[in-house]
Amino acid sequence: MCEANAYLIEGDEKKLIMEAVDTVDPEGEGITLVSIFGEQKFLKAHHIHALSLVDHRIFLKADG
Amino acid sequence: MCEANAYLIEGDEKKLIMEAVDTVDPEGEGITLVSIFGEQKFLKAHHIHALSLVDHRIFLKADG
Repeated sequence: MCEANAYLIEGDEKKLIMEAVDTVDPEGEGITLVSIFGEQKFLKAHHIHALSLVDHRIFLKADG
Repeated sequence: MCEANAYLIEGDEKKLIMEAVDTVDPEGEGITLVSIFGEQKFLKAHHIHALSLVDHRIFLKADG
């Protein structure tokens, strides 16, 4: 499988917020993450910041 | 391996711009893509729009 873990960057910290993410889509004023298990999470005013796919990592950040 | 293909969304079209992408990082006023083969591409004024990792797809879009 080719899913990745999503981390939220806050200053110098990287906080794991969802494992095994399949899709990330813009929705309204934020982004919706869906895992391969069907788990969903909406993050208002956040965007996809960077990717490191061989390491299975997605980095998200608050807007602005 | 867990790389994905990067597509640029332009209106209704999805244009393949790089295969086997490993990392995408913000750099200056745009994003830099690096493939697992070491190939690099810089896209000025673009951002990561959406992901569909099980399908090995990254979607990019022009800013604004």
